[in-house]
Amino acid sequence: MKLYESLAAEVEGQVARGVLLEGERLPSVRQASQRRKLSISTVLRAYSLLESRGVIESRPQSGFFVRARPRVSPRAAEPAPALTLSSEVDVSRLVLSTLRTIRTQGAAPLGSPYPDPAAFPAARISRYANAIARSRPVSVLDDLPPGNPQLIRQIARRYMEHGVAVDPAEIIVTVGATEAINLCLQAVARPGDTIAVESPTFYAMLHAIERMGMRALEVPTNRRTGIDVDALRTILASQRVAAVMVMPNFQNPLGFLMPDGRKRELVALLAEHGIPAIENCVYDELYYGDSHPCPLKTWDTRGLVLHCASFSKSLTSNYRIGWALAGRYAAQVEKLKFLNTLSTPSLPQLAIADYLQHDGFDRHLRQVRKGYAQRARMMAAAVLRFFPAGTRVSEPQGGYVLWVELAGGVDAMRLYARALEHGITVGPGHMFSARGSWTHCIRLNYSYPWTQATEDALRTLGRLVAELA
Amino acid sequence: MKLYESLAAEVEGQVARGVLLEGERLPSVRQASQRRKLSISTVLRAYSLLESRGVIESRPQSGFFVRARPRVSPRAAEPAPALTLSSEVDVSRLVLSTLRTIRTQGAAPLGSPYPDPAAFPAARISRYANAIARSRPVSVLDDLPPGNPQLIRQIARRYMEHGVAVDPAEIIVTVGATEAINLCLQAVARPGDTIAVESPTFYAMLHAIERMGMRALEVPTNRRTGIDVDALRTILASQRVAAVMVMPNFQNPLGFLMPDGRKRELVALLAEHGIPAIENCVYDELYYGDSHPCPLKTWDTRGLVLHCASFSKSLTSNYRIGWALAGRYAAQVEKLKFLNTLSTPSLPQLAIADYLQHDGFDRHLRQVRKGYAQRARMMAAAVLRFFPAGTRVSEPQGGYVLWVELAGGVDAMRLYARALEHGITVGPGHMFSARGSWTHCIRLNYSYPWTQATEDALRTLGRLVAELA
Repeated sequence: MKLYESLAAEVEGQVARGVLLEGERLPSVRQASQRRKLSISTVLRAYSLLESRGVIESRPQSGFFVRARPRVSPRAAEPAPALTLSSEVDVSRLVLSTLRTIRTQGAAPLGSPYPDPAAFPAARISRYANAIARSRPVSVLDDLPPGNPQLIRQIARRYMEHGVAVDPAEIIVTVGATEAINLCLQAVARPGDTIAVESPTFYAMLHAIERMGMRALEVPTNRRTGIDVDALRTILASQRVAAVMVMPNFQNPLGFLMPDGRKRELVALLAEHGIPAIENCVYDELYYGDSHPCPLKTWDTRGLVLHCASFSKSLTSNYRIGWALAGRYAAQVEKLKFLNTLSTPSLPQLAIADYLQHDGFDRHLRQVRKGYAQRARMMAAAVLRFFPAGTRVSEPQGGYVLWVELAGGVDAMRLYARALEHGITVGPGHMFSARGSWTHCIRLNYSYPWTQATEDALRTLGRLVAELA
Repeated sequence: MKLYESLAAEVEGQVARGVLLEGERLPSVRQASQRRKLSISTVLRAYSLLESRGVIESRPQSGFFVRARPRVSPRAAEPAPALTLSSEVDVSRLVLSTLRTIRTQGAAPLGSPYPDPAAFPAARISRYANAIARSRPVSVLDDLPPGNPQLIRQIARRYMEHGVAVDPAEIIVTVGATEAINLCLQAVARPGDTIAVESPTFYAMLHAIERMGMRALEVPTNRRTGIDVDALRTILASQRVAAVMVMPNFQNPLGFLMPDGRKRELVALLAEHGIPAIENCVYDELYYGDSHPCPLKTWDTRGLVLHCASFSKSLTSNYRIGWALAGRYAAQVEKLKFLNTLSTPSLPQLAIADYLQHDGFDRHLRQVRKGYAQRARMMAAAVLRFFPAGTRVSEPQGGYVLWVELAGGVDAMRLYARALEHGITVGPGHMFSARGSWTHCIRLNYSYPWTQATEDALRTLGRLVAELA
């Protein structure tokens, strides 16, 4: 292929891939010649060839522009991913595929794990960010691990207000709770180790275990009171477990609030064995009851509880700011943070610190909680009304997801696939186990405003379940 | 200890740790009683005790406030970390300690690896972010790995303009180049593997190798032309190397630009052996010459080059948005990204995409490059003038760091410690090797405006070197 032909083919390829869109200007002949070290005449010949093929057009005094009809972006054009399930469950692939169908198909977001972003005070937080960005340069040096000191102080204050005395020195700011969970797990266990988890398990825990090449041991979990401490005691008596990962408050997907007595018992059991607990507390601020729930951290006197949380569910997901209270592992987690992503971005940390100090986080939360608590009841009632008899639903005490056990052993992946044809997504139970449990369950998101469309979607789902039974 | 005493001790501890600052209000008696499930009288007794100790004071109709003199924040109060070097170099600890002294001591930033943030168009980018945050809710679902489609298109366009045809499908947006490098390395090699690197090596590469439990093999590197391809060829003939990590353009710390012929040769050699190359191209936009340098990716026909870059050095470090062009490993890197940090924050991706599409990135870069090129000469001249005879300096072709080989075998850590006493930091050569090479070299940052203080600091450094020689 001659030089001009190869340049023409390259440009045509970039148009086909959506890198260059209709009406966009190509680099000028002079620029292209300089940057590619080609002669002016070679570039001109390439552009003429593209013109003759109808890919670009020249406009007098302006240059060359893409003429081709707009291609849909390559991402959007991807076919919906095939959602078959191999016998060996690759949870992360399943989860990512499921999330993508929500994104790419504009389906009703019942399958989404994320809260409705319209409820976040995004504009207010952005105003703080903007004021900072306009007033002074922000250096990465100000926010090296463990993180921005102002934000760390605000986080510690919030725990104090809820009655948990946290040493600011054990707080490490992270990229969402996901990074916090990963770093904590890496700090306390090694590849090949066994990690005890709830069942069903929030899949982020399974991802962390998968990422590190560890093994998940699923412990029986009560729908109302959480992980079975007695069952765990029996397990610990007979086999080595490197760590326990739980969501004591408003577990995803079950929504339970572990009673304080149980939490104390769990912390005591683990302290006795010297086993660290990683608790994921991202929903703690979204309680429906009278007061903020206590994390396991409340009873941790030995620094064995690694507590992970984030602002992404309660305040804003625009920046994905999370943190770990890493107890006796704080120095190790801090170092792993530095190795993993160097530092958490500065401006978002500063903006959130300013918001927490000066704005109405509690007011925002009161409003959100009220809406979620109300919709929890509406969603449960609608499911029981539209789904076949024998359907069971959870009774979430916080958060914004409902767990539904389908009647008649209907496979959730089959329901998922059928629902998708109607533009509806659900969270298949398959995502919540590494050993293929919970295949007859789905998780539904009720964080979005309740509309006729929500009700229609639930009615459709109910009909599909009946057909599949 | 009685309940009220323990509450009082806890509050006093939070004041001492700087969680509560002078003049800040304590939770009201009613709040504290509800949240801690203590009686009103217990809280009142605790607060009275604190009042009698002079820690807090009550203000009529307002509540209780911290009275104690302001404590310096616990972070700021940390003593300067001891910077001794064990025989087995723990590069990441050394680097983090060094960076912290820059942050905490307000020293002249000659030791900083980051560009002067005052040169970034932070306010302009923030304006785009603000406009987005005010206009619509942004969902995590829009920006799942590989990343925001608009930003991915803008990144691909930029490569196209520089003459590199990139398939947008191989771009994965990450938390800075650090995450990109980590994920790429994890995708191509396993713990225990040997990774060939330049010598001196940019320490971020060593961190990635350390994080994965791999071994770094330091290959001779020419100060002007980069990694010695012939030496590498000899190594590959006799031992297994899982990957090669290089910075072909404006390497940190040497500043060289690998000639295109050498790059082609390197890509061909690795293709012949089927060995992937990870290239760190964070400084590519900061060239002093006529045109944008070519990355190794330019000659990669087999998808074996994993190219990592970021906006943090060229546009803004406020958000830490980086990316990988992961070639044939794109699917694997995308999955690792999902496992590592779930997704890169949305709002920053959208804001940068808007800036790239509508604003003056090239204008900004022209100005920055001109300043860096000029200061590169000024810094080199000043070092040669103030440092003892026999000092050698690099000739950076881009970026913003100068590499200085101290005369008389002066140990850079000793210079570092002495300089710190004068409020000056330098980048000790020890950071650039896992086997303790380059201990007589330092790296100096010249991205900041040149002032009398810069010249004074260099004069002081020169005097200290002479004293230590």
